[in-house]
Amino acid sequence: MPLYALTLEYDGGPFVGWQRQENGLSVQQVLEEAAAKLNGGVPPLAVAAGRTDAGVHAEGQVAQIEIAREIPPDRLREALNFHSRPHPVSVLRAALAPEGWNARFSAVRRGYRYRILNRRARPALEEGRVWHVQHPLDVAAMHAAAQRLLGKHDFSAFRAAACQAKSAIRTLDRLDVARHGNEVVITAEARSFLHHQIRNLAGTLFEVGMGRRGEAWPRQVLDGRDRTKAGQTAPAEALVFAFVRYEPELAWCD
Amino acid sequence: MPLYALTLEYDGGPFVGWQRQENGLSVQQVLEEAAAKLNGGVPPLAVAAGRTDAGVHAEGQVAQIEIAREIPPDRLREALNFHSRPHPVSVLRAALAPEGWNARFSAVRRGYRYRILNRRARPALEEGRVWHVQHPLDVAAMHAAAQRLLGKHDFSAFRAAACQAKSAIRTLDRLDVARHGNEVVITAEARSFLHHQIRNLAGTLFEVGMGRRGEAWPRQVLDGRDRTKAGQTAPAEALVFAFVRYEPELAWCD
Repeated sequence: MPLYALTLEYDGGPFVGWQRQENGLSVQQVLEEAAAKLNGGVPPLAVAAGRTDAGVHAEGQVAQIEIAREIPPDRLREALNFHSRPHPVSVLRAALAPEGWNARFSAVRRGYRYRILNRRARPALEEGRVWHVQHPLDVAAMHAAAQRLLGKHDFSAFRAAACQAKSAIRTLDRLDVARHGNEVVITAEARSFLHHQIRNLAGTLFEVGMGRRGEAWPRQVLDGRDRTKAGQTAPAEALVFAFVRYEPELAWCD
Repeated sequence: MPLYALTLEYDGGPFVGWQRQENGLSVQQVLEEAAAKLNGGVPPLAVAAGRTDAGVHAEGQVAQIEIAREIPPDRLREALNFHSRPHPVSVLRAALAPEGWNARFSAVRRGYRYRILNRRARPALEEGRVWHVQHPLDVAAMHAAAQRLLGKHDFSAFRAAACQAKSAIRTLDRLDVARHGNEVVITAEARSFLHHQIRNLAGTLFEVGMGRRGEAWPRQVLDGRDRTKAGQTAPAEALVFAFVRYEPELAWCD
């Protein structure tokens, strides 16, 4: 059966997360039920590059799905976007996946953005999309602290208790903190991340930005490998799964 | 009684527009009811720089409101943001208005953005914030056509039937059309606008972008002064009231 790759945009707000769960609607369920209409009524299994938590958004998640018949990728996109209405899940592009390709295991780079609205007034337009922090953050200190976390390390200190990965060793390629007006954006890139890793990093850099901890502290937390010593798990709704890269890149439509 | 100026951000989605109406909740009502808590229970009258339509958003609307007691502007902002919860209306900054100042009549420049999402896939993250146009727009042609509309003209062709302004003469200072990735943004600036003027300009430039009309056509429509000859009134939800400028500028808090 042909395997398709799909680039997905979604608003995480109404969902229990990527993965199917008993207690509510997931992005996976929306996608699988839309695909069932093209698959003789049988929902195929969708596998994502990253299983985002409840509330986490995506502008460039990638998922794979097997469909019994061959469909031109641009028509597959149109059909899935029609059948997934009115849920806030959109297929941006599609591709026929090459032999042996896997949305999760073939990914060579994943990129996320974490958005902090750093101003007095609460968000009106970006409510549900940002972490609202009223106290002015020291972005230079956050960025400097972040640079000390780059490279290959045991990230046990920044991993969720529920994390299922066998090893906590990861290579963090990028962790930038930058201010754009009222917004402080943390950009994180790696081949792969642990469960809650970015939200835990954000919550830890937040302590530095608030002036409660020094620039050297996040690295000490990393080296200590003790989750209880890190900062809070920052809110899910401010996290955006920005992109996934493959090598070679797929033959996306458009 | 002291008069205060407020810079407002709001999501136009849940509102019938700026102005109070029988048939639903308005931004004006939310603001006036929040202010009533600081005014002995009496809702003061709020006057806005521009009366936005239902669905239109604001990042920089300005309103004035009289409150019986003097309150430091930063405390007024905090109190209004507390009492207006959970509605998506936020007071970004406040100022004590000088003698004779009026939010509407003292404005010397108003700025709007009109956002078109120009891609095949329907919006998931920006649903309710953009006009979704699937056909690739010729942005260079739209921009060129827009430049012919700048200056002082009778804008009768781009004015709503319900427009209450005595004269249709306006001076359009800026009308730029630019592409930012998938998004086509129309930026409009003038001292003041007619009712539906920007949405009618957007709907007219859209015809040029689609290749249905030439670059010279919008100017012919302008010169004809006949509303029935212009393009459609583009959807409200893609319009953002970006800023209002005063001279001299107010002494805003923060």
